[in-house]
Amino acid sequence: MTKIVIVGGVAGGASAAARARRVSETAEIIMLERGEFISFANCGLPYHIGGEIESREALLLQTPESFKSRFNIEVRVFNDVIAINRQTKQLSIRNLLTDEVYQESYDKLLLSPGASPIKPPISGINSHFVHSLRNIPDMDKVLANLLLHKPKHATVVGGGFIGLEMAEALRHRGLEVSLLELADQVMGPVDVEMANILHQKLVDNGVDLRLKTGLTAVHERPNQPAESDITDDYDTPVFPHYHLHLDLSDNSSLATDLVILAIGVKPETRLASECGLTLGKLGGIYVDASMRTSDPDIYAVGDAIETDDFVTGNPILIPLAGPANRQGRLAADNMLGGNKLYRATQGTAICKLFDMAIASTGLNEKSLLRQVIPFEKIYVHTASHASYYPRAHPITLKLLFCPDNGRILGAQAAGIDGVDKRIDVLAVAQRAGMTVYDLADLELTYAPPFGSARDVVNQAGMVAANVLLGDESICHSQELDHLTAEQVIIDVRNPSELTAVGAIVGAINIPLPVLRDRLNELPKDKELLVFCQVGLRGHVAYRMLVQHGFKVRNLSGGYKTYQMVNARF
Amino acid sequence: MTKIVIVGGVAGGASAAARARRVSETAEIIMLERGEFISFANCGLPYHIGGEIESREALLLQTPESFKSRFNIEVRVFNDVIAINRQTKQLSIRNLLTDEVYQESYDKLLLSPGASPIKPPISGINSHFVHSLRNIPDMDKVLANLLLHKPKHATVVGGGFIGLEMAEALRHRGLEVSLLELADQVMGPVDVEMANILHQKLVDNGVDLRLKTGLTAVHERPNQPAESDITDDYDTPVFPHYHLHLDLSDNSSLATDLVILAIGVKPETRLASECGLTLGKLGGIYVDASMRTSDPDIYAVGDAIETDDFVTGNPILIPLAGPANRQGRLAADNMLGGNKLYRATQGTAICKLFDMAIASTGLNEKSLLRQVIPFEKIYVHTASHASYYPRAHPITLKLLFCPDNGRILGAQAAGIDGVDKRIDVLAVAQRAGMTVYDLADLELTYAPPFGSARDVVNQAGMVAANVLLGDESICHSQELDHLTAEQVIIDVRNPSELTAVGAIVGAINIPLPVLRDRLNELPKDKELLVFCQVGLRGHVAYRMLVQHGFKVRNLSGGYKTYQMVNARF
Repeated sequence: MTKIVIVGGVAGGASAAARARRVSETAEIIMLERGEFISFANCGLPYHIGGEIESREALLLQTPESFKSRFNIEVRVFNDVIAINRQTKQLSIRNLLTDEVYQESYDKLLLSPGASPIKPPISGINSHFVHSLRNIPDMDKVLANLLLHKPKHATVVGGGFIGLEMAEALRHRGLEVSLLELADQVMGPVDVEMANILHQKLVDNGVDLRLKTGLTAVHERPNQPAESDITDDYDTPVFPHYHLHLDLSDNSSLATDLVILAIGVKPETRLASECGLTLGKLGGIYVDASMRTSDPDIYAVGDAIETDDFVTGNPILIPLAGPANRQGRLAADNMLGGNKLYRATQGTAICKLFDMAIASTGLNEKSLLRQVIPFEKIYVHTASHASYYPRAHPITLKLLFCPDNGRILGAQAAGIDGVDKRIDVLAVAQRAGMTVYDLADLELTYAPPFGSARDVVNQAGMVAANVLLGDESICHSQELDHLTAEQVIIDVRNPSELTAVGAIVGAINIPLPVLRDRLNELPKDKELLVFCQVGLRGHVAYRMLVQHGFKVRNLSGGYKTYQMVNARF
Repeated sequence: MTKIVIVGGVAGGASAAARARRVSETAEIIMLERGEFISFANCGLPYHIGGEIESREALLLQTPESFKSRFNIEVRVFNDVIAINRQTKQLSIRNLLTDEVYQESYDKLLLSPGASPIKPPISGINSHFVHSLRNIPDMDKVLANLLLHKPKHATVVGGGFIGLEMAEALRHRGLEVSLLELADQVMGPVDVEMANILHQKLVDNGVDLRLKTGLTAVHERPNQPAESDITDDYDTPVFPHYHLHLDLSDNSSLATDLVILAIGVKPETRLASECGLTLGKLGGIYVDASMRTSDPDIYAVGDAIETDDFVTGNPILIPLAGPANRQGRLAADNMLGGNKLYRATQGTAICKLFDMAIASTGLNEKSLLRQVIPFEKIYVHTASHASYYPRAHPITLKLLFCPDNGRILGAQAAGIDGVDKRIDVLAVAQRAGMTVYDLADLELTYAPPFGSARDVVNQAGMVAANVLLGDESICHSQELDHLTAEQVIIDVRNPSELTAVGAIVGAINIPLPVLRDRLNELPKDKELLVFCQVGLRGHVAYRMLVQHGFKVRNLSGGYKTYQMVNARF
């Protein structure tokens, strides 16, 4: 009878426990959780704060009782593992309710401790008006703050998933929101021009977005008077009575009532490192593909571990629920004698922001550049479904691929409708080792309410294949701002479009329908950089011009991409 | 200079023409279209009739003028090709406006004539109250009928895509609708238990559904009085004044005002067969993978041709817009010296029906049985996104796979939300040659509004992998109605569920939470057929029981699938 002890009762730990019981009815399975709750919906926390998920109970997916009755698993909440003795295969555990410390032996140990919010060592960071959001008690504290102190202004520090979701949630609750982000963009998994779509969405929804801005100190207002004690000579106080003043990295200050700290997480490795388990290059727990640590009887899963990047094979930290869940299931199999292997992580992810979504899979351009991996990229802007059917919205898709063989390196998409579907399709294609040629041939569901006969993904595949086959040479937006004397920009849109959405200074406007008749106006000795609104008419113009002997490139993604690249926030 | 003539100006023809010009600026390209319109949105016709697409103009995507100015392509509408002389490479063409017949030569000819609605040779079928729906004039006639005759009751004959979309469209317009279908199910691409979900949806939306019922004769009421001529003694006429009486195959009759004939289409092969081109087994134009017919200078694409089935390689007729579009593009490349090959067709398709969608890819169970291809199948019912986030709806997914290696043979899904996404994911996985093991490992976008950490498709892959690996033996609903003396049915749901949704007569109810304590009530010498509501708890029970030495199988998809299988319409 194998005795399995699992440290951590959320995503990875809970799925491992359930799977272990299904594999072995006879194993003794103990799950230890430091907190009060197991298997709760941590991805749902911002939505309950924002009010979209009304019931707090909806977030509590399982209880120790349900684990006991369904799976015969002993769950001990408020039990904190303080040390692992690998020689004796014993754990030292503190019962946080009684403060008693006791020993528990294991045959196989699974570490699923998760990751903890990064808390920078700055002055005032421990104010009770500064919150992280990682679990149910964190959420309860934020909600209590909202109820008790009725804050009017909140500051979210960090523009990752939680930061964006919290900015939205707090706007839903009617608060003024400032969002601070130290980088030049929110949502690190996508590239900056894609993030600019989010920046615009934040601004449009009244968020005070401050990029390249960090938090350097937090000051509580001393002896703050209660609202009712204030006597004003005027109907409206001149200055609202904020709970906090923040110092920012740009030397400005910000009055606010509430801070949400969401600058990222770091793997919880204290237990692992203290007992001598190998850590990886990035500071996560090292595991092999069977989820086994450097100790053959100890496995680890979830946010605390390093896995391999799907494209490069390099180690990465991916604190996402999906991988944690699958890793937990797989570790359970292997602890009970199985031999399943985890496949590398693509980092497929999505974030809702107000009425839109942004999603990505694989590597982004930043990381390809950093790792000096050759790539080509294209952009398409295509309707989420047949444009003649109501409620079609454009999807902006960026596809990164290998210039040699067309392998998919990564993809990013943003839009109001159908973004999840396109990135899912691309994630599967990437995992299957498909190329951009394969994307052009994919046979996807089509009826006017759902897609197009030539879907966004087909379209992207065709454009990328054109580039690889030499049927189109493309240029990118940055080049248009650094013209040489040997280059001319040609805008093939209709004049009404220039008026409506803007033009590029210095571009010659010859609309596509009359281009064939006006070829004599174009210089044969210069390179023509052609563009239209999204790239399609530019392609038609490209094909026409190149066959008439001109030297041409088409701007990938057209003026719409140019605007994304050049937006400033 | 190559001279390309294209017969047919809609999906396949129009995309071939545009692509041909992009490939060759010097080719002479002529597109001949018998009708008035080119490149119109035929998939949108029912939605304009239903009123969801308000503007008729929205359906007219291109005009002869736009093709001329953008692509320098000569489009001749109302020009009907009446014969092909392959020896002289000449076409005889009738100008339908002038009735003049003239000759046109070609170097390469592309046939994209489409398919025509099947019109059974029954009495009265030519009544002007009987409509097909294939093009803009057909749609205009239906709309004119609705305006002029103000029908109160319509009869849709045929339950395929158009039939279902028209039943919905006419309900939206406030008509009473009867839907006749000769088979025992609507929506042929899916299996009957999946179609039962649609049957229920039709009934719930007030459609008078008549399965296994055909139309045998149409009778117009002679000398029908105009509405205004009727003088009634009562406020409401006793019997409405229908325009038509229909005879049905079950010897009943049906009074109606309007018939929509949607029993399918047949490839338009007259031109091809008259000039001696090879036809395929199923009566479509034969083409090789380069879209070339038996004449090396004649290509054919779209609804008129036969392609290969992705799974079996057998010929199939697939009248869908997506394949037509890609075939047209590819034929254009090849007519101009390219060497692109079309890959076989999966038949990926989707249909919206009121608030739900049903979609499929690959082969269904009926065709696997008919072709004696070994398969296994599983069902899952999983929320479209995290169930704690608002507006999650169950998706019912049926997965068919190879029992030897786990290859995906086909998939079908139905639900209110996210059906297109799951079938797209499965269509890509199937095309990539993935197995059910791969499905379990797919890394898909997850945030609570979009999916689950363990998505529907992951779940289906895990269940199927369990079956293949011997971690679960399953049974199917039909077996529960034909128990042997050596079998017992065990229902592990909670008693409240039986009351709420129904029970299976003769099943022993032992809820999962107490099952482990009541093992002694179960017979060791009989086979236990276990079930729960959707199959998950049944799996937990299965694993528990089998390890305690019982002979067990779990009902795939649980009681919910049992209900689908046993629904009668």
